[in-house]
Amino acid sequence: MLFDSISSLSHIIEILGTAAFAISGVFAAMEKKLDIFGLLVIAFVTAIGGGTIRDILIGATPVAWMRDTSTLTVISVSVIAAILLKGKSENFQRTLIFFDALGLGLFTVIGLRKGIAAHLSPGVCIVLGTITACFGGVLRDVLLNRVPVIFQKEVIYATTCIIGGIGYFLLRPVLTDAPLDIISALLVFSVRMIAYKKKWRLPVV
Amino acid sequence: MLFDSISSLSHIIEILGTAAFAISGVFAAMEKKLDIFGLLVIAFVTAIGGGTIRDILIGATPVAWMRDTSTLTVISVSVIAAILLKGKSENFQRTLIFFDALGLGLFTVIGLRKGIAAHLSPGVCIVLGTITACFGGVLRDVLLNRVPVIFQKEVIYATTCIIGGIGYFLLRPVLTDAPLDIISALLVFSVRMIAYKKKWRLPVV
Amino acid sequence: MLFDSISSLSHIIEILGTAAFAISGVFAAMEKKLDIFGLLVIAFVTAIGGGTIRDILIGATPVAWMRDTSTLTVISVSVIAAILLKGKSENFQRTLIFFDALGLGLFTVIGLRKGIAAHLSPGVCIVLGTITACFGGVLRDVLLNRVPVIFQKEVIYATTCIIGGIGYFLLRPVLTDAPLDIISALLVFSVRMIAYKKKWRLPVV
Repeated sequence: MLFDSISSLSHIIEILGTAAFAISGVFAAMEKKLDIFGLLVIAFVTAIGGGTIRDILIGATPVAWMRDTSTLTVISVSVIAAILLKGKSENFQRTLIFFDALGLGLFTVIGLRKGIAAHLSPGVCIVLGTITACFGGVLRDVLLNRVPVIFQKEVIYATTCIIGGIGYFLLRPVLTDAPLDIISALLVFSVRMIAYKKKWRLPVV
Repeated sequence: MLFDSISSLSHIIEILGTAAFAISGVFAAMEKKLDIFGLLVIAFVTAIGGGTIRDILIGATPVAWMRDTSTLTVISVSVIAAILLKGKSENFQRTLIFFDALGLGLFTVIGLRKGIAAHLSPGVCIVLGTITACFGGVLRDVLLNRVPVIFQKEVIYATTCIIGGIGYFLLRPVLTDAPLDIISALLVFSVRMIAYKKKWRLPVV
Repeated sequence: MLFDSISSLSHIIEILGTAAFAISGVFAAMEKKLDIFGLLVIAFVTAIGGGTIRDILIGATPVAWMRDTSTLTVISVSVIAAILLKGKSENFQRTLIFFDALGLGLFTVIGLRKGIAAHLSPGVCIVLGTITACFGGVLRDVLLNRVPVIFQKEVIYATTCIIGGIGYFLLRPVLTDAPLDIISALLVFSVRMIAYKKKWRLPVV
């Protein structure tokens, strides 16, 4: 009963994360004045890119979005919503950061779990979680011909996934699966939101 | 007998499509003043990129060009032809658009069929057909450090693959395999050629 | 006994090659003023990119660096070393070219062998060896938003892998595995070092 609630909560957050990433893709594509097809492709790549690279690296093919057809629907609806909402971007920006941070946390945990299921070492699992959460944005930026935002952020972004991954493996001996997932995802989410507010940044050598 | 003719016709068109994509890669690479090795790599990536991404996504490895050694030969010959023909680019440009549109139609249908063979849903198959036909050009543009042409075309390009894919699934209940393939490929080809002549374009938001 | 020495020598050179590629990534990332996380990602992608694309193309998943955890350690240590050594870049540059050329030779041979093990044709194996040796650098340059260096080199680079691959298949009938590997890797290394000294370049069409 509790597990079912957590499972469906997790699915809802995954959909919200996918939507948030798709919307961030649409906004980035609008800046480059792409046509509607271009918006759709960039939204799609941003939302599924990280999970796709993860699945390809571990050999879980056909990759996730090919097996779960709801993903294409979620992305299409998000693109329409983003186009309709573009006038109200002031408040919308804050909502976006919120869902993006939720998606970041959840996608990190999904990546960690898939790495563990494939019997990979903790360090490799953390890399896989970070790739899952961040590489959709990297592909988006490569396609839009700019240096990926994760390398230039004024505030830390991908580093929060690494922190969440380390937390996951530290807490793993003392927690069961469901609370471990939730706490690790919340850790990524919280560090990301605080970093965003406080404008934390990493040093440049 | 008829089927054999269609099958060998399809193989010839596939070779012409591969050659057209390879040649478009060579011309794009010449604009950036790459050396001969650079021309060869860009021609290669343009011609096999879409099918390679398709095979990786569905897990059909080693990917197609590794199993069919004629692909490397076709690409090498195309590169030499393109270098020799570069002076006559006026009429050549029109021939290129023609074979590129043929390749676009055939590669879309190949992608659709591989998606169906992997038991994917129609929406996912259409995405796979479009990736097969268009992502060689996307990789070419990413390697040449420019925004992919499919996002900026003055006339529609990738959208014709989606139209062909929708046509394929609408006609599938009433046609057998061979006519279905031919009509769908011709649909992509015709829409692409008309769009090119009439300069159809998608709206920018 | 001799074989064991060769095998551990090969492992040492692989580590040095990985380190050299990681360090070249760090230096490229420093030029773009990335933060520490950015340096780490670019170092990682440069060092494992070629082997990762190779493993994905032939379907050898999870890819190599996920199975051999020492790779992440070698890369991390290399990043720290590169940061500490950046002041002394004059002599360091020469050391780097040396290890990079060693890595180029060894990675080419590793790619050739994996291609043969997957029953691919000689031409395809040579392409695979070249991808293994060169595409980490291609990914590095794509992520840093510049035209890949291998397309613009004032001196030949990737072409040395093709020369080594042709040498490998010419010598294969007359040599056993271990000397064949060593001679082919040395061929790539020597041609690369001579090309670097003599500033050999390919013609531009």
